[in-house]
Amino acid sequence: MPRYKLTIEYDGSAFCGWQVQTHDPSVQGFLEDAIEKFCGERTPTICAGRTDSGVHALGQVVHIDLSTDHDPFRVQSALNFHLQPHAIAVVAAEKTHPEFHARFGAVRRHYKYRIINRRAPLTLDVGRAWCVHPALNVAAMRQAAALFVGTHDFTSFRDTQCQAKSPVKTLERLELEQMGDELHLHASAKSFLHHQVRNMVGTLVDVGLGKYPPARITEMLAARDRRAGGPTAPPDGLYLTRVEY
Amino acid sequence: MPRYKLTIEYDGSAFCGWQVQTHDPSVQGFLEDAIEKFCGERTPTICAGRTDSGVHALGQVVHIDLSTDHDPFRVQSALNFHLQPHAIAVVAAEKTHPEFHARFGAVRRHYKYRIINRRAPLTLDVGRAWCVHPALNVAAMRQAAALFVGTHDFTSFRDTQCQAKSPVKTLERLELEQMGDELHLHASAKSFLHHQVRNMVGTLVDVGLGKYPPARITEMLAARDRRAGGPTAPPDGLYLTRVEY
Repeated sequence: MPRYKLTIEYDGSAFCGWQVQTHDPSVQGFLEDAIEKFCGERTPTICAGRTDSGVHALGQVVHIDLSTDHDPFRVQSALNFHLQPHAIAVVAAEKTHPEFHARFGAVRRHYKYRIINRRAPLTLDVGRAWCVHPALNVAAMRQAAALFVGTHDFTSFRDTQCQAKSPVKTLERLELEQMGDELHLHASAKSFLHHQVRNMVGTLVDVGLGKYPPARITEMLAARDRRAGGPTAPPDGLYLTRVEY
Repeated sequence: MPRYKLTIEYDGSAFCGWQVQTHDPSVQGFLEDAIEKFCGERTPTICAGRTDSGVHALGQVVHIDLSTDHDPFRVQSALNFHLQPHAIAVVAAEKTHPEFHARFGAVRRHYKYRIINRRAPLTLDVGRAWCVHPALNVAAMRQAAALFVGTHDFTSFRDTQCQAKSPVKTLERLELEQMGDELHLHASAKSFLHHQVRNMVGTLVDVGLGKYPPARITEMLAARDRRAGGPTAPPDGLYLTRVEY
Protein backbone atom coordinates (compact mmCIF):
# COMPACT_ATOMS: atom_id res chain seq x y z
CA MET A 1 0.00 0.00 0.00
CA PRO A 2 1.66 3.24 -1.09
CA ARG A 3 1.88 5.95 1.55
CA TYR A 4 1.45 9.63 0.66
CA LYS A 5 2.55 12.71 2.54
CA LEU A 6 0.15 15.63 2.08
CA THR A 7 0.82 19.24 3.10
CA ILE A 8 -2.45 20.95 3.93
CA GLU A 9 -3.56 24.56 4.32
CA TYR A 10 -6.88 25.59 5.90
CA ASP A 11 -8.87 28.47 7.32
CA GLY A 12 -9.64 27.08 10.76
CA SER A 13 -12.51 29.49 11.40
CA ALA A 14 -14.79 27.35 9.24
CA PHE A 15 -14.21 24.12 11.21
CA CYS A 16 -14.58 22.60 14.68
CA GLY A 17 -10.85 21.79 14.45
CA TRP A 18 -8.80 19.07 12.79
CA GLN A 19 -10.44 16.06 14.42
CA VAL A 20 -13.66 14.37 13.30
CA GLN A 21 -16.55 15.09 15.67
CA THR A 22 -19.96 13.55 15.24
CA HIS A 23 -22.02 16.50 14.04
CA ASP A 24 -19.50 19.26 13.41
CA PRO A 25 -17.58 20.15 10.24
CA SER A 26 -13.96 19.06 10.73
CA VAL A 27 -10.91 19.31 8.49
CA GLN A 28 -10.28 15.59 8.89
CA GLY A 29 -13.87 14.74 7.98
CA PHE A 30 -13.84 16.78 4.76
CA LEU A 31 -10.39 15.45 3.83
CA GLU A 32 -11.49 11.83 4.33
CA ASP A 33 -14.66 12.56 2.31
CA ALA A 34 -12.50 13.95 -0.52
CA ILE A 35 -10.21 10.88 -0.45
CA GLU A 36 -13.25 8.60 -0.62
CA LYS A 37 -14.68 10.57 -3.57
CA PHE A 38 -11.32 10.32 -5.33
CA CYS A 39 -10.52 6.62 -4.89
CA GLY A 40 -13.62 5.03 -3.38
CA GLU A 41 -11.90 4.14 -0.09
CA ARG A 42 -12.44 5.48 3.42
CA THR A 43 -8.83 5.82 4.58
CA PRO A 44 -7.81 7.07 8.02
CA THR A 45 -5.76 10.27 8.00
CA ILE A 46 -2.99 10.91 10.53
CA CYS A 47 -1.84 14.51 11.03
CA ALA A 48 1.17 16.17 12.66
CA GLY A 49 -0.83 18.46 14.96
CA ARG A 50 -4.51 18.23 15.85
CA THR A 51 -5.40 21.90 15.69
CA ASP A 52 -8.34 23.23 17.73
CA SER A 53 -11.42 25.00 16.43
CA GLY A 54 -10.50 28.33 14.83
CA VAL A 55 -6.78 27.50 14.52
CA HIS A 56 -5.38 27.75 11.00
CA ALA A 57 -2.76 25.75 9.12
CA LEU A 58 -0.38 26.79 6.37
CA GLY A 59 1.65 23.57 6.50
CA GLN A 60 -0.23 20.83 8.35
CA VAL A 61 1.22 17.43 7.39
CA VAL A 62 -0.94 14.33 6.92
CA HIS A 63 -0.13 10.80 5.84
CA ILE A 64 -2.51 8.39 4.14
CA ASP A 65 -2.26 4.92 2.64
CA LEU A 66 -4.00 4.24 -0.65
CA SER A 67 -4.57 0.73 -2.03
CA THR A 68 -3.34 1.62 -5.52
CA ASP A 69 -0.54 3.71 -6.95
CA HIS A 70 -1.38 7.24 -8.09
CA ASP A 71 0.77 10.04 -9.42
CA PRO A 72 1.12 12.44 -6.44
CA PHE A 73 0.35 15.35 -8.78
CA ARG A 74 -2.98 13.67 -9.56
CA VAL A 75 -3.66 12.96 -5.87
CA GLN A 76 -3.21 16.67 -5.14
CA SER A 77 -5.43 17.85 -8.02
CA ALA A 78 -8.18 15.33 -7.33
CA LEU A 79 -8.30 16.06 -3.59
CA ASN A 80 -8.37 19.81 -4.22
CA PHE A 81 -11.22 19.29 -6.67
CA HIS A 82 -13.24 17.24 -4.17
CA LEU A 83 -12.40 19.55 -1.24
CA GLN A 84 -14.20 22.48 -2.89
CA PRO A 85 -15.94 24.60 -1.63
CA HIS A 86 -14.38 24.00 1.80
CA ALA A 87 -11.50 26.26 2.84
CA ILE A 88 -9.01 23.36 2.79
CA ALA A 89 -6.32 22.86 0.14
CA VAL A 90 -3.57 20.31 -0.48
CA VAL A 91 -0.57 22.52 -1.23
CA ALA A 92 1.85 19.61 -1.77
CA ALA A 93 1.64 15.82 -2.17
CA GLU A 94 4.42 13.26 -2.47
CA LYS A 95 4.80 9.50 -2.29
CA THR A 96 6.74 8.63 0.85
CA HIS A 97 8.30 5.55 2.48
CA PRO A 98 5.97 3.17 4.38
CA GLU A 99 7.56 4.06 7.75
CA PHE A 100 6.84 7.78 7.41
CA HIS A 101 4.53 8.89 10.22
CA ALA A 102 3.07 12.42 10.18
CA ARG A 103 2.65 12.53 13.96
CA PHE A 104 5.41 10.39 15.49
CA GLY A 105 8.03 11.18 12.85
CA ALA A 106 7.89 14.96 13.34
CA VAL A 107 11.10 16.38 14.80
CA ARG A 108 10.04 20.04 14.90
CA ARG A 109 6.73 21.87 14.73
CA HIS A 110 6.54 25.59 13.92
CA TYR A 111 3.66 27.84 14.90
CA LYS A 112 3.05 31.52 14.23
CA TYR A 113 0.68 33.69 16.26
CA ARG A 114 -0.55 36.97 14.73
CA ILE A 115 -1.46 39.89 17.00
CA ILE A 116 -2.70 43.19 15.55
CA ASN A 117 -2.18 45.98 18.08
CA ARG A 118 -4.45 48.88 17.22
CA ARG A 119 -7.54 50.76 18.36
CA ALA A 120 -9.72 49.97 15.35
CA PRO A 121 -11.45 46.61 15.04
CA LEU A 122 -10.32 44.18 12.34
CA THR A 123 -11.90 44.00 8.88
CA LEU A 124 -9.85 41.90 6.43
CA ASP A 125 -8.22 39.99 9.30
CA VAL A 126 -11.33 39.06 11.29
CA GLY A 127 -10.82 35.48 12.50
CA ARG A 128 -7.21 35.58 11.22
CA ALA A 129 -5.49 37.53 14.01
CA TRP A 130 -6.04 38.64 17.61
CA CYS A 131 -6.77 42.35 17.80
CA VAL A 132 -5.39 43.85 21.04
CA HIS A 133 -6.51 47.46 21.47
CA PRO A 134 -4.28 49.03 24.17
CA ALA A 135 -0.66 49.70 23.19
CA LEU A 136 1.63 46.76 23.97
CA ASN A 137 5.12 47.05 25.46
CA VAL A 138 6.94 44.87 22.94
CA ALA A 139 10.32 45.09 24.71
CA ALA A 140 8.78 43.64 27.89
CA MET A 141 7.07 40.90 25.84
CA ARG A 142 10.42 39.99 24.25
CA GLN A 143 12.06 39.69 27.67
CA ALA A 144 9.21 37.50 28.88
CA ALA A 145 9.28 35.32 25.74
CA ALA A 146 12.97 34.55 26.28
CA LEU A 147 12.15 33.09 29.73
CA PHE A 148 9.91 30.42 28.16
CA VAL A 149 12.69 29.10 25.93
CA GLY A 150 14.42 25.90 27.10
CA THR A 151 13.34 22.73 28.88
CA HIS A 152 10.67 23.36 31.50
CA ASP A 153 7.71 21.77 33.21
CA PHE A 154 4.93 23.63 31.35
CA THR A 155 2.07 22.54 33.65
CA SER A 156 1.12 26.19 34.25
CA PHE A 157 0.69 26.65 30.49
CA ARG A 158 -1.11 23.50 29.43
CA ASP A 159 -4.83 22.92 29.35
CA THR A 160 -6.14 21.06 32.39
CA GLN A 161 -7.59 18.50 29.92
CA CYS A 162 -4.21 17.94 28.24
CA GLN A 163 -3.61 14.22 27.62
CA ALA A 164 0.21 14.31 27.33
CA LYS A 165 2.02 11.98 29.74
CA SER A 166 4.70 14.48 30.66
CA PRO A 167 4.37 18.27 31.07
CA VAL A 168 8.10 18.68 30.42
CA LYS A 169 8.83 20.10 26.98
CA THR A 170 11.75 21.81 25.30
CA LEU A 171 10.76 25.08 23.66
CA GLU A 172 13.42 25.80 21.04
CA ARG A 173 12.24 29.21 19.90
CA LEU A 174 9.80 31.89 21.01
CA GLU A 175 10.46 35.13 19.18
CA LEU A 176 8.50 38.29 18.53
CA GLU A 177 8.68 39.94 15.13
CA GLN A 178 7.22 43.46 14.85
CA MET A 179 5.93 44.89 11.55
CA GLY A 180 4.03 48.15 11.95
CA ASP A 181 1.04 47.46 14.20
CA GLU A 182 1.38 43.71 13.69
CA LEU A 183 3.27 41.31 15.96
CA HIS A 184 4.16 37.76 14.92
CA LEU A 185 5.14 35.33 17.63
CA HIS A 186 7.19 32.42 16.29
CA ALA A 187 7.20 29.24 18.39
CA SER A 188 9.17 26.07 17.58
CA ALA A 189 9.53 22.78 19.46
CA LYS A 190 9.53 19.03 18.81
CA SER A 191 6.03 19.03 20.29
CA PHE A 192 3.68 21.23 22.28
CA LEU A 193 1.16 20.59 25.07
CA HIS A 194 -2.55 21.28 24.56
CA HIS A 195 -3.14 25.06 24.37
CA GLN A 196 0.53 25.69 25.20
CA VAL A 197 1.12 28.29 22.48
CA ARG A 198 -2.16 30.10 23.16
CA ASN A 199 -1.51 30.10 26.93
CA MET A 200 2.00 31.50 26.43
CA VAL A 201 0.65 34.17 24.04
CA GLY A 202 -2.13 35.18 26.45
CA THR A 203 0.48 35.55 29.20
CA LEU A 204 2.86 37.55 26.98
CA VAL A 205 0.03 39.95 26.11
CA ASP A 206 -0.63 40.42 29.85
CA VAL A 207 3.07 41.33 30.20
CA GLY A 208 2.74 43.69 27.21
CA LEU A 209 -0.22 45.37 28.91
CA GLY A 210 1.86 45.85 32.08
CA LYS A 211 -0.24 43.52 34.25
CA TYR A 212 2.96 41.92 35.56
CA PRO A 213 6.68 42.12 34.85
CA PRO A 214 8.52 39.71 32.52
CA ALA A 215 10.19 37.99 35.50
CA ARG A 216 6.80 36.65 36.57
CA ILE A 217 7.14 33.99 33.83
CA THR A 218 9.83 32.22 35.86
CA GLU A 219 7.54 32.11 38.90
CA MET A 220 4.62 30.89 36.83
CA LEU A 221 6.68 28.04 35.39
CA ALA A 222 7.93 27.10 38.88
CA ALA A 223 4.35 26.98 40.25
CA ARG A 224 3.46 23.99 38.02
CA ASP A 225 -0.21 24.90 38.33
CA ARG A 226 -2.44 26.04 35.46
CA ARG A 227 -4.02 28.63 37.79
CA ALA A 228 -0.63 30.34 38.08
CA GLY A 229 -0.32 30.87 34.28
CA GLY A 230 -1.93 33.64 32.22
CA PRO A 231 -5.07 33.52 30.07
CA THR A 232 -5.58 31.58 26.84
CA ALA A 233 -5.27 33.69 23.68
CA PRO A 234 -8.09 33.24 21.13
CA PRO A 235 -7.53 30.64 18.38
CA ASP A 236 -7.93 33.26 15.60
CA GLY A 237 -4.26 34.28 15.50
CA LEU A 238 -2.71 30.80 15.58
CA TYR A 239 -1.21 29.12 12.49
CA LEU A 240 0.55 25.76 12.23
CA THR A 241 3.10 26.91 9.68
CA ARG A 242 5.51 24.02 9.11
CA VAL A 243 6.48 20.55 10.35
CA GLU A 244 9.97 19.10 10.01
CA TYR A 245 10.81 15.38 9.76
CA MET B 1 -18.61 73.34 10.44
CA PRO B 2 -15.55 71.31 11.43
CA ARG B 3 -14.17 69.01 8.74
CA TYR B 4 -12.74 65.59 9.61
CA LYS B 5 -10.37 63.38 7.62
CA LEU B 6 -11.04 59.68 8.16
CA THR B 7 -8.76 56.84 7.08
CA ILE B 8 -10.84 53.75 6.38
CA GLU B 9 -10.10 50.05 5.99
CA TYR B 10 -12.56 47.53 4.56
CA ASP B 11 -12.97 44.05 3.20
CA GLY B 12 -14.48 44.82 -0.18
CA SER B 13 -15.87 41.32 -0.72
CA ALA B 14 -18.80 42.14 1.56
CA PHE B 15 -19.93 45.22 -0.39
CA CYS B 16 -21.15 46.34 -3.82
CA GLY B 17 -18.27 48.84 -3.75
CA TRP B 18 -17.69 52.24 -2.17
CA GLN B 19 -20.66 54.05 -3.69
CA VAL B 20 -24.25 53.99 -2.40
CA GLN B 21 -26.52 51.94 -4.65
CA THR B 22 -30.23 51.66 -4.05
CA HIS B 23 -30.56 48.09 -2.79
CA ASP B 24 -27.00 46.90 -2.29
CA PRO B 25 -24.75 47.10 0.76
CA SER B 26 -22.13 49.79 0.12
CA VAL B 27 -19.23 51.05 2.22
CA GLN B 28 -20.50 54.62 1.84
CA GLY B 29 -24.01 53.64 2.93
CA PHE B 30 -22.85 51.90 6.11
CA LEU B 31 -20.43 54.73 6.90
CA GLU B 32 -23.17 57.37 6.49
CA ASP B 33 -25.49 55.24 8.65
CA ALA B 34 -22.80 55.09 11.36
CA ILE B 35 -22.28 58.89 11.22
CA GLU B 36 -26.03 59.40 11.56
CA LYS B 37 -26.20 57.03 14.54
CA PHE B 38 -23.29 58.90 16.15
CA CYS B 39 -24.42 62.51 15.71
CA GLY B 40 -27.96 62.40 14.37
CA GLU B 41 -27.02 63.98 11.03
CA ARG B 42 -27.02 62.52 7.53
CA THR B 43 -23.74 63.92 6.20
CA PRO B 44 -22.40 63.29 2.71
CA THR B 45 -19.06 61.47 2.59
CA ILE B 46 -16.44 62.21 -0.08
CA CYS B 47 -13.73 59.59 -0.67
CA ALA B 48 -10.38 59.58 -2.45
CA GLY B 49 -11.12 56.58 -4.67
CA ARG B 50 -14.50 55.01 -5.41
CA THR B 51 -13.50 51.35 -5.25
CA ASP B 52 -15.52 48.75 -7.17
CA SER B 53 -17.31 45.74 -5.76
CA GLY B 54 -14.84 43.29 -4.23
CA VAL B 55 -11.96 45.80 -4.08
CA HIS B 56 -10.44 46.31 -0.62
CA ALA B 57 -9.03 49.33 1.14
CA LEU B 58 -6.32 49.59 3.77
CA GLY B 59 -6.12 53.39 3.61
CA GLN B 60 -9.15 54.87 1.86
CA VAL B 61 -9.48 58.56 2.79
CA VAL B 62 -12.83 60.23 3.40
CA HIS B 63 -13.79 63.73 4.49
CA ILE B 64 -16.95 64.71 6.33
CA ASP B 65 -18.35 67.89 7.85
CA LEU B 66 -20.04 67.69 11.24
CA SER B 67 -22.15 70.50 12.66
CA THR B 68 -20.50 70.36 16.09
CA ASP B 69 -16.97 69.90 17.38
CA HIS B 70 -15.95 66.41 18.52
CA ASP B 71 -12.65 65.02 19.72
CA PRO B 72 -11.34 63.05 16.68
CA PHE B 73 -10.51 60.15 19.01
CA ARG B 74 -14.18 60.03 19.97
CA VAL B 75 -15.30 60.27 16.32
CA GLN B 76 -13.15 57.24 15.52
CA SER B 77 -14.38 55.16 18.48
CA ALA B 78 -18.05 56.04 17.95
CA LEU B 79 -17.97 55.30 14.22
CA ASN B 80 -16.20 51.99 14.80
CA PHE B 81 -18.83 51.09 17.37
CA HIS B 82 -21.70 51.89 15.00
CA LEU B 83 -19.99 50.25 12.00
CA GLN B 84 -20.06 46.83 13.69
CA PRO B 85 -20.62 44.11 12.51
CA HIS B 86 -19.72 45.35 9.01
CA ALA B 87 -16.15 44.75 7.82
CA ILE B 88 -15.36 48.49 7.78
CA ALA B 89 -13.12 50.25 10.31
CA VAL B 90 -11.93 53.81 10.84
CA VAL B 91 -8.19 53.34 11.43
CA ALA B 92 -7.47 57.06 11.90
CA ALA B 93 -9.45 60.28 12.36
CA GLU B 94 -8.25 63.86 12.56
CA LYS B 95 -9.73 67.34 12.41
CA THR B 96 -8.59 69.01 9.19
CA HIS B 97 -8.81 72.43 7.52
CA PRO B 98 -12.07 73.38 5.77
CA GLU B 99 -10.41 73.33 2.32
CA PHE B 100 -9.22 69.72 2.64
CA HIS B 101 -10.83 67.61 -0.08
CA ALA B 102 -10.40 63.82 -0.01
CA ARG B 103 -10.88 63.48 -3.77
CA PHE B 104 -9.57 66.65 -5.41
CA GLY B 105 -6.78 67.24 -2.89
CA ALA B 106 -5.10 63.86 -3.42
CA VAL B 107 -1.67 64.16 -5.04
CA ARG B 108 -0.84 60.45 -5.15
CA ARG B 109 -2.86 57.23 -4.83
CA HIS B 110 -1.21 53.90 -4.07
CA TYR B 111 -2.69 50.53 -4.92
CA LYS B 112 -1.41 47.01 -4.29
CA TYR B 113 -2.53 43.96 -6.24
CA ARG B 114 -1.94 40.51 -4.68
CA ILE B 115 -1.45 37.49 -6.95
CA ILE B 116 -0.87 34.01 -5.48
CA ASN B 117 0.81 31.79 -8.07
CA ARG B 118 0.27 28.15 -7.14
CA ARG B 119 -1.58 25.01 -8.17
CA ALA B 120 -3.71 24.69 -5.04
CA PRO B 121 -6.86 26.80 -4.62
CA LEU B 122 -6.91 29.50 -1.92
CA THR B 123 -8.21 28.95 1.60
CA LEU B 124 -7.31 31.80 3.98
CA ASP B 125 -6.95 34.23 1.05
CA VAL B 126 -10.21 33.52 -0.77
CA GLY B 127 -11.54 36.89 -1.96
CA ARG B 128 -8.29 38.56 -0.85
CA ALA B 129 -5.98 37.65 -3.74
CA TRP B 130 -6.09 36.36 -7.33
CA CYS B 131 -4.94 32.76 -7.54
CA VAL B 132 -3.16 32.07 -10.85
CA HIS B 133 -2.42 28.36 -11.27
CA PRO B 134 0.16 28.02 -14.11
CA ALA B 135 3.69 29.21 -13.29
CA LEU B 136 4.23 32.88 -14.15
CA ASN B 137 7.35 34.29 -15.81
CA VAL B 138 8.02 37.09 -13.34
CA ALA B 139 10.99 38.51 -15.26
CA ALA B 140 8.80 39.01 -18.34
CA MET B 141 6.09 40.61 -16.19
CA ARG B 142 8.66 43.04 -14.74
CA GLN B 143 9.79 44.05 -18.25
CA ALA B 144 6.19 44.59 -19.29
CA ALA B 145 5.34 46.56 -16.11
CA ALA B 146 8.16 49.00 -16.82
CA LEU B 147 6.59 49.85 -20.21
CA PHE B 148 3.42 51.12 -18.50
CA VAL B 149 5.33 53.65 -16.38
CA GLY B 150 5.22 57.26 -17.57
CA THR B 151 2.69 59.51 -19.29
CA HIS B 152 0.51 57.64 -21.79
CA ASP B 153 -2.90 57.59 -23.34
CA PHE B 154 -4.36 54.65 -21.38
CA THR B 155 -7.50 54.20 -23.53
CA SER B 156 -6.59 50.53 -24.12
CA PHE B 157 -6.58 49.96 -20.36
CA ARG B 158 -9.62 51.87 -19.18
CA ASP B 159 -13.14 50.60 -18.91
CA THR B 160 -15.33 51.56 -21.86
CA GLN B 161 -17.72 53.12 -19.28
CA CYS B 162 -14.95 55.28 -17.77
CA GLN B 163 -16.18 58.83 -17.12
CA ALA B 164 -12.79 60.57 -17.02
CA LYS B 165 -12.44 63.49 -19.47
CA SER B 166 -8.93 62.55 -20.57
CA PRO B 167 -7.42 59.08 -21.02
CA VAL B 168 -3.92 60.52 -20.55
CA LYS B 169 -2.45 59.67 -17.15
CA THR B 170 1.02 59.59 -15.62
CA LEU B 171 1.80 56.26 -13.98
CA GLU B 172 4.58 56.96 -11.49
CA ARG B 173 5.25 53.41 -10.33
CA LEU B 174 4.36 49.87 -11.38
CA GLU B 175 6.60 47.36 -9.62
CA LEU B 176 6.42 43.66 -8.91
CA GLU B 177 7.54 42.36 -5.54
CA GLN B 178 7.96 38.56 -5.25
CA MET B 179 7.68 36.73 -1.91
CA GLY B 180 7.59 32.95 -2.28
CA ASP B 181 4.52 32.09 -4.36
CA GLU B 182 3.03 35.55 -3.82
CA LEU B 183 3.41 38.54 -6.15
CA HIS B 184 2.54 42.08 -5.12
CA LEU B 185 2.10 44.65 -7.81
CA HIS B 186 2.55 48.20 -6.55
CA ALA B 187 0.93 50.98 -8.61
CA SER B 188 1.17 54.71 -7.85
CA ALA B 189 -0.20 57.74 -9.69
CA LYS B 190 -1.97 61.02 -9.00
CA SER B 191 -5.10 59.32 -10.32
CA PHE B 192 -6.19 56.23 -12.23
CA LEU B 193 -8.81 55.56 -14.88
CA HIS B 194 -11.72 53.19 -14.22
CA HIS B 195 -10.41 49.59 -14.05
CA GLN B 196 -6.93 50.79 -15.06
CA VAL B 197 -5.04 48.83 -12.40
CA ARG B 198 -7.08 45.65 -12.95
CA ASN B 199 -6.67 45.91 -16.73
CA MET B 200 -2.90 46.39 -16.42
CA VAL B 201 -2.69 43.43 -14.00
CA GLY B 202 -4.74 41.18 -16.30
CA THR B 203 -2.43 42.08 -19.16
CA LEU B 204 0.73 41.50 -17.09
CA VAL B 205 -0.55 38.05 -16.11
CA ASP B 206 -1.08 37.27 -19.82
CA VAL B 207 2.58 38.25 -20.35
CA GLY B 208 3.58 36.06 -17.38
CA LEU B 209 1.71 33.15 -18.96
CA GLY B 210 3.62 33.68 -22.23
CA LYS B 211 0.56 34.68 -24.28
CA TYR B 212 2.52 37.63 -25.72
CA PRO B 213 5.92 39.26 -25.19
CA PRO B 214 6.47 42.29 -22.90
CA ALA B 215 6.96 44.54 -25.93
CA ARG B 216 3.31 44.07 -26.83
CA ILE B 217 2.45 46.60 -24.08
CA THR B 218 3.86 49.42 -26.22
CA GLU B 219 1.68 48.37 -29.17
CA MET B 220 -1.39 48.06 -26.93
CA LEU B 221 -0.89 51.58 -25.56
CA ALA B 222 -0.42 52.95 -29.08
CA ALA B 223 -3.66 51.32 -30.29
CA ARG B 224 -5.78 53.53 -27.96
CA ASP B 225 -8.56 50.98 -28.12
CA ARG B 226 -9.83 48.94 -25.17
CA ARG B 227 -10.10 45.89 -27.45
CA ALA B 228 -6.31 46.00 -27.89
CA GLY B 229 -5.61 45.74 -24.14
CA GLY B 230 -5.57 42.56 -22.05
CA PRO B 231 -8.29 41.17 -19.76
CA THR B 232 -9.52 42.67 -16.47
CA ALA B 233 -8.08 41.00 -13.37
CA PRO B 234 -10.64 40.08 -10.68
CA PRO B 235 -11.28 42.65 -7.93
CA ASP B 236 -10.24 40.19 -5.16
CA GLY B 237 -6.53 41.07 -5.25
CA LEU B 238 -6.85 44.87 -5.37
CA TYR B 239 -6.22 47.09 -2.32
CA LEU B 240 -6.29 50.90 -2.12
CA THR B 241 -3.38 51.13 0.32
CA ARG B 242 -2.64 54.83 0.80
CA VAL B 243 -3.51 58.33 -0.44
CA GLU B 244 -1.14 61.29 -0.23
CA TYR B 245 -2.18 64.95 0.03
